[in-house]
Amino acid sequence: MAVKRSWVLKQDAGDGKMKEISDHIYEGALAFLNAEYKLLTIFVIIASIALAIIAYIVPTTHMLIIVAFIFGAIFSALAGNMGMKIATKTNVRTTQAARSSLPKALKISFGGGTVMGLGVAGLAVLGLTVFFIVFFHYFMGGVWTNTMDMTVVLETLAGFSLGAESIALFARVGGGIYTKAADVGADLVGKVEAGIPEDDPRNPATIADNVGDNVGDVAGMGADLFGSYVATVLAAMVLGNYVLKDILASNPTFTDAFGGIGPILLPVVIAGFGILFSIIGTMLVKISSNDAKEAQVQSALNIGNWVSIIMVAVASYFLIDYMLPPTMNMEFYGEGAKEIASIRVFYAAIVGLVVGGVISSVTEYYTGLGKKPILAIVQKSSTGAGTNIIAGLATGMISTFPTILLFAGAIWASYAFAGFYGVALAASAMMATTAMQLAIDAFGPIADNAGGIAEMSELPNEVRTRTDILDSVGNTTAATGKGFAIASAALTSLALFAAYVTFTGIDGINIFRAPVLAMLFVGGMVPVVFSALAMNSVGKAAMDMVYEVRRQFKEIPGIMEGTGKPEYGKCVQISTKAALREMMLPGLLTIGFPIAIVLLGMLIYPDNNELVAEMLGGYMAGVTVSGVLWAVFQNNAGGAWDNAKKSFEAGVMINGEMTYKGSDAHKAAVTGDTVGDPFKDTSGPSMNILIKLTCLIGLVIAPILGEHEASEHGLATPSATVIEQPAVTGLEQREEVTIDRQIDADGNVIATVTVSTITEKETIKTTEEIFEGTPEEVNQKIAEFKENR
Amino acid sequence: MAVKRSWVLKQDAGDGKMKEISDHIYEGALAFLNAEYKLLTIFVIIASIALAIIAYIVPTTHMLIIVAFIFGAIFSALAGNMGMKIATKTNVRTTQAARSSLPKALKISFGGGTVMGLGVAGLAVLGLTVFFIVFFHYFMGGVWTNTMDMTVVLETLAGFSLGAESIALFARVGGGIYTKAADVGADLVGKVEAGIPEDDPRNPATIADNVGDNVGDVAGMGADLFGSYVATVLAAMVLGNYVLKDILASNPTFTDAFGGIGPILLPVVIAGFGILFSIIGTMLVKISSNDAKEAQVQSALNIGNWVSIIMVAVASYFLIDYMLPPTMNMEFYGEGAKEIASIRVFYAAIVGLVVGGVISSVTEYYTGLGKKPILAIVQKSSTGAGTNIIAGLATGMISTFPTILLFAGAIWASYAFAGFYGVALAASAMMATTAMQLAIDAFGPIADNAGGIAEMSELPNEVRTRTDILDSVGNTTAATGKGFAIASAALTSLALFAAYVTFTGIDGINIFRAPVLAMLFVGGMVPVVFSALAMNSVGKAAMDMVYEVRRQFKEIPGIMEGTGKPEYGKCVQISTKAALREMMLPGLLTIGFPIAIVLLGMLIYPDNNELVAEMLGGYMAGVTVSGVLWAVFQNNAGGAWDNAKKSFEAGVMINGEMTYKGSDAHKAAVTGDTVGDPFKDTSGPSMNILIKLTCLIGLVIAPILGEHEASEHGLATPSATVIEQPAVTGLEQREEVTIDRQIDADGNVIATVTVSTITEKETIKTTEEIFEGTPEEVNQKIAEFKENR
Repeated sequence: MAVKRSWVLKQDAGDGKMKEISDHIYEGALAFLNAEYKLLTIFVIIASIALAIIAYIVPTTHMLIIVAFIFGAIFSALAGNMGMKIATKTNVRTTQAARSSLPKALKISFGGGTVMGLGVAGLAVLGLTVFFIVFFHYFMGGVWTNTMDMTVVLETLAGFSLGAESIALFARVGGGIYTKAADVGADLVGKVEAGIPEDDPRNPATIADNVGDNVGDVAGMGADLFGSYVATVLAAMVLGNYVLKDILASNPTFTDAFGGIGPILLPVVIAGFGILFSIIGTMLVKISSNDAKEAQVQSALNIGNWVSIIMVAVASYFLIDYMLPPTMNMEFYGEGAKEIASIRVFYAAIVGLVVGGVISSVTEYYTGLGKKPILAIVQKSSTGAGTNIIAGLATGMISTFPTILLFAGAIWASYAFAGFYGVALAASAMMATTAMQLAIDAFGPIADNAGGIAEMSELPNEVRTRTDILDSVGNTTAATGKGFAIASAALTSLALFAAYVTFTGIDGINIFRAPVLAMLFVGGMVPVVFSALAMNSVGKAAMDMVYEVRRQFKEIPGIMEGTGKPEYGKCVQISTKAALREMMLPGLLTIGFPIAIVLLGMLIYPDNNELVAEMLGGYMAGVTVSGVLWAVFQNNAGGAWDNAKKSFEAGVMINGEMTYKGSDAHKAAVTGDTVGDPFKDTSGPSMNILIKLTCLIGLVIAPILGEHEASEHGLATPSATVIEQPAVTGLEQREEVTIDRQIDADGNVIATVTVSTITEKETIKTTEEIFEGTPEEVNQKIAEFKENR
Repeated sequence: MAVKRSWVLKQDAGDGKMKEISDHIYEGALAFLNAEYKLLTIFVIIASIALAIIAYIVPTTHMLIIVAFIFGAIFSALAGNMGMKIATKTNVRTTQAARSSLPKALKISFGGGTVMGLGVAGLAVLGLTVFFIVFFHYFMGGVWTNTMDMTVVLETLAGFSLGAESIALFARVGGGIYTKAADVGADLVGKVEAGIPEDDPRNPATIADNVGDNVGDVAGMGADLFGSYVATVLAAMVLGNYVLKDILASNPTFTDAFGGIGPILLPVVIAGFGILFSIIGTMLVKISSNDAKEAQVQSALNIGNWVSIIMVAVASYFLIDYMLPPTMNMEFYGEGAKEIASIRVFYAAIVGLVVGGVISSVTEYYTGLGKKPILAIVQKSSTGAGTNIIAGLATGMISTFPTILLFAGAIWASYAFAGFYGVALAASAMMATTAMQLAIDAFGPIADNAGGIAEMSELPNEVRTRTDILDSVGNTTAATGKGFAIASAALTSLALFAAYVTFTGIDGINIFRAPVLAMLFVGGMVPVVFSALAMNSVGKAAMDMVYEVRRQFKEIPGIMEGTGKPEYGKCVQISTKAALREMMLPGLLTIGFPIAIVLLGMLIYPDNNELVAEMLGGYMAGVTVSGVLWAVFQNNAGGAWDNAKKSFEAGVMINGEMTYKGSDAHKAAVTGDTVGDPFKDTSGPSMNILIKLTCLIGLVIAPILGEHEASEHGLATPSATVIEQPAVTGLEQREEVTIDRQIDADGNVIATVTVSTITEKETIKTTEEIFEGTPEEVNQKIAEFKENR
């Protein structure tokens, strides 16, 4: 990433005017992020206090979760910040390159995207790995003890994911509101009232509009996928822990080349390899001809993407073969334990990769230029905005049909192959190429910005034509990227949902219990209300922008003649303030509801934590089902309206007549696009975070409701049993080391290490030693004890 | 009903032109219904064959279900037909009355609505009662035997409900498409292209438009509520049967003043009393002043409504006290059996009545003229159609918040009071005033039609002013009526859902099983796709209408000058044809999906009927949750747009300026209303039927998946045990009569009647007799045997 970054930054950043505009965008974006981070610091402090309370009450939740949470939040912010910095530096360099050559412009803009993709994926794997290693050593002394201990490790690690996803919520929602408020506001006054073109430097909101592309599509998307990535891998690790439990149930002496934790490490390793393959994939994205059209650019991206996907598939086969035992004993809910071959886990991973690929095609079909649904919307535009809107809504709604059948099939199939571990592995495999996906995604807004800079700097038309080609491809990848994001969010949520059920130790979630069913309804409602709030926020923020632009047009002399300089900064400020203000309520809704349900449930059923856990589970399921539906509906309807409008640029045939921009039908299509804007860029993409965060909050709350064995003993960490390899004669006689850890009020550990020899007939306790001290000291002593034996 | 009907028909039907127009509407409506019934006859035949196959395969499903199904279909058609006939006769009489007096116009239009309401409710109670009595005697010889026998009785009775709901599906969807195709088509050419006002006699589509009000709002709504009414009472009876089972489990000698089936009869009795109270309520609807405004008319309706609701509440108290034992043993899922007082069933009923009342207020708030949400939409209209649409969508979406919380609370509370029997009783109590609700609902389209006739007959303005007052109130009652309909559908579906679970004998529906979760997703998707299909259908059918009207304007000379006569019939035909064609696909979707899931499930899991039953249950839950959400969203968004548009008629204050009809803001509001039309009159209301029919199909399929005790014995009907009253010394010694029925291939019954004397210590078999013959003969013989003993 650093290599690519320094290469990009070394490129020519163009001359005076271009650089000035680019700097405005850079500063505006940073100003937003800084204001956002200030606000989020307060949120992180409040959330940390809440976590501290949970950790204080619940014996199995350790205070370290707060550290993990804070680092998750910081990493997520860092990922967004880094991506945005490089994107805002790359835009002007792309413009400069486009003055001479299209291939170079692609190389630079995609290079910027690659930096972001690798940064996000790298930070995710780094953060997860480091914290896993730290917690693994802290709680288990770096060796496998038992399922319960590992549960504590992973529960603490969930804090990292929670931190990442919380920041993602605000980045996505805030960024989404920002970008559309600036866009709609700039259009309403600029295009409609003043009659000046898009990206015209006389429009005071134009810088804010370009900043919006970065904070929404780059930083927001980056934080979103960072969150998905972390959550997916975490969920797969949690479920891997339960796979291990099932394996040990039938084979207590099980171990492997990874100290017995192969199933837990597998998802991280796949993620790590995915980054390598993404790098190879990004290297393949290039075009040679300066006269290339959209199709060539798109196919260059496709080649890179497919190569990295296929490499992940191949690598998964070998990794699964290497890291998992050939057959595993796996518990299928309601069907009992089954002996399954590890190849079935590979099949599940393939399901994930297929979903990732197919969802792009489905999205492409419903939102792509020249496709049947778009043509139908174009035709309906001839009878007015009303029929255009109905057609767009209907297209978005119908697009849920193949999408949901695909998801439902994927859930079913990957579960049938390898239980919920299979579902999580499907998600992990799909997410493995996140770096590549993000590179493809982030290159779009960079190209869009590059075009804006060309327009504002009044560069020759050919420059704009070249950036327009990149921008147009970027629009398609933005739509398919949203498909990928929601698919990953859906599978991630299900994996988290499964992890939640196993964490709480409930028997499943029975919607025939009325309180659970009631919460299913409530959960179904939340994404709808969340979307409405986000849409209304865009409307309010856009109106703020309209008033400011009107004021500047009136008060600054010579602004329309190009002699007066608009106050770009004021507009950036207004968008920033509005976005931060408006993201509060949706955020509160997301975080508040699960907590309210648990509190209400515990109040009404004080002795029935199991029912409360099921209620929360019903809520999670409701949010997930409804959230996925509304995400698909809104993303695809928005994308369809957008491209229906774009169709008029090249001209469309309506009732036998060629119709162009400026016609009544085009105006109707513009109205549709106005409705679609918040759909596809604000409320639609927010659904991803809503469903993931809901399930993560559930996971973090789970220990309160769960009935871990440990909590029965009142221990801070539960008893831990290390079973070492059979010592002398195969299975007939083996040695067992039991380590029982208790943590006192000061955080010191009292560990009782017992060594026993077990034969078929009897168990003979040979040694018992007690160690006391800080966790680190005790681990050290145990290690010494083992060495000396 | 007959009295009111003959009174309405005796009223003055006006002079030549008015009568002619009214006749056109009457004939158009009948033409549609006849064409529809022809098509539905084919459907009923196919469905009957499908039921025959089920009955042949499944031992516990009896062939008589086909008879019940056909009668259900006929009754539903009859209810719609009757309502429409009276509505199309009343419209012109209302116009005539409005020439002289507003109070009289209200009396007549509401009288027409009353005829319809009483007809629908009367047919429902009549059909259910007669078939229950017939099946009760056929299968059980008219005396309580045991739970299993009663299950067979109620399963067969479910056929009646299935027939009613199937017809309702097509009536609602077909009617909804018809009315909006005609409305939108007439507006697009008439108002927009030709510039002539609404209801102008020169517009060929104007009769079709008025016919549409009748087939959609009258016949469609009638069939919808007829279906809800029957399904609710049926579901309550099914759950009453299980209440009885629980009671008998703790007290095997239980009986009451109703032969031991009080809990089963209670819902029917409440429904019957509800009709009486509705009659009283309708008598109170009157105004005295000729200068009354909307508020007075509305409050006259409210008084009638509330009086009937309060009377139902009071009666419920006494009925529940009289018909249920003072305390009952009731099984709560996962919580074991509890001893509950029968007063808690009354509380559950009150929950239902409260929901019915509150839902109207909530709907009124989000869609009512002058309320905050409507004013906000009006303000947003000033910046164009785009912002108007966003505001309307957001309003519909946000309105799900209080509505879903209300439903969720109602489910939870009524279940907490008295289990799922409580939920069903809540629905029954709410539905008890269906006759009154329908009267209020149906009066709206009658007044609308009356206004249309006044316009078309070119009567003085004051007539139109009077009918407009009624029409305006009718619009409000239409919106609140939709709230009532969806609330009833939601509760009914949950009651059916509960009945389904008990019928199949599964342990609940666990969404932690991946196939079940996958079906929850699929179920969530179906209402969305259904809505899209319905919306697209309206678009297509409206375009057909547009082309026809354009053709007539071009080809018929003098049509615009009023000298040429438009071919109204052609337009009616086109609407009819389009509606019937377009209702096929949504219908197929509704009926096909549950069947496909069961077939697929049985194919994949041939030995695990329980899992297949849970999958279907997951699907049902998905459809219900998503369907309720989309119904509320679409109904309220549509209603809000409609009234935002209407607000301009009296003038609205936007940014300090009074704005009227014809302004740009008004045009934006008209666009919103165009989008809202199919929302509120086609796809939104169809959701009710979709969710109810889905759950009913599940209920009818249930026996295939269920594991009834009987099927283990391979009996056509299960063993039946009649326990008679203790004969000699209290509980110490009692006599038991056991009747074991088997049905052979020819449908003949072999009944073994055993009489035993049971003391605490022993059971002595005193008599055993075997009777053979047709069911009727055997019942006769058993009755004789009992008499002679």
